[in-house]
Amino acid sequence: MGIDPGLTRCGVGVVEGRPGAPGTMVAVDVVRTDPEAGLADRLLALDEGLRALIDAHRPEAVAVERVFSQHNVASVIGTAQASGIALLAAARSGLPSATYTPSEVKNAVCGNGTADKRQVTTMITRILRLTEPPKPADAADALAIAVCHLWRGGVQARIAQAAAKERIR
Amino acid sequence: MGIDPGLTRCGVGVVEGRPGAPGTMVAVDVVRTDPEAGLADRLLALDEGLRALIDAHRPEAVAVERVFSQHNVASVIGTAQASGIALLAAARSGLPSATYTPSEVKNAVCGNGTADKRQVTTMITRILRLTEPPKPADAADALAIAVCHLWRGGVQARIAQAAAKERIR
Repeated sequence: MGIDPGLTRCGVGVVEGRPGAPGTMVAVDVVRTDPEAGLADRLLALDEGLRALIDAHRPEAVAVERVFSQHNVASVIGTAQASGIALLAAARSGLPSATYTPSEVKNAVCGNGTADKRQVTTMITRILRLTEPPKPADAADALAIAVCHLWRGGVQARIAQAAAKERIR
Repeated sequence: MGIDPGLTRCGVGVVEGRPGAPGTMVAVDVVRTDPEAGLADRLLALDEGLRALIDAHRPEAVAVERVFSQHNVASVIGTAQASGIALLAAARSGLPSATYTPSEVKNAVCGNGTADKRQVTTMITRILRLTEPPKPADAADALAIAVCHLWRGGVQARIAQAAAKERIR
């Protein structure tokens, strides 16, 4: 499951496959919260939405786009809070998680870390052999994050999982 | 309950009282997470630590210091994630929450929005009639946030609660 964190719109994409193979889209969705609501209520709605999707799709791992401080300063705090809720939701479900920078995601699906949104959408539509671009448009990024993890993260995730088990002993 | 959000050290202060009266310290603590651990594990440890303190002290409301983007850019994302976890913990426990800027907190306890850390510690020690400054030192800010809410937030919190109930109907 790939998560493109956001407080107003949080993209979620579920992809099935294995490293090296193209992968198949299982689901794509956006969890929305009401910008008029209080912050705590919005975080709770996001938590409930993400946990419902985790329960529905039972992914093996969760990948979340890493928040960067060079983003719009006004929105970075909300995005950081949303990414924290996403990582917490994964951990509470006992799932391993990973984070990727936007350029890692673009590089994985486009072979170019500075690819624009349109290129990511074009490539993810092609990689997952979809008949049309995923909708809503922001969900394409979440699918790209999931594909990035599938291709790049498999090995790292297994190492992290082994390390986590080692810590529990 | 006042929470001074942080990923490595998260201050928690519990104060009992009412607007206009000095208030009494009920508890002061710091939830620590291991900087060597993975981010998701740290957020889970913070969530569990805060929820245990909420369960132990059953506060009527939770006040969290608002994260500002002018803070150290490298740490603002971790602090924002910690504040999101704190607000989510309050919401999941059905508690009303409020956020205050650092200068609102300083103004409430010192009468001066640009007071330094030492002044906040001195004033909170005096206000809560403690025999010595609260320890650890970062916990003084959490107590100041709790006192700020007690004095400033009572009315706003009741309005927010009434509005929340109105939305549920």
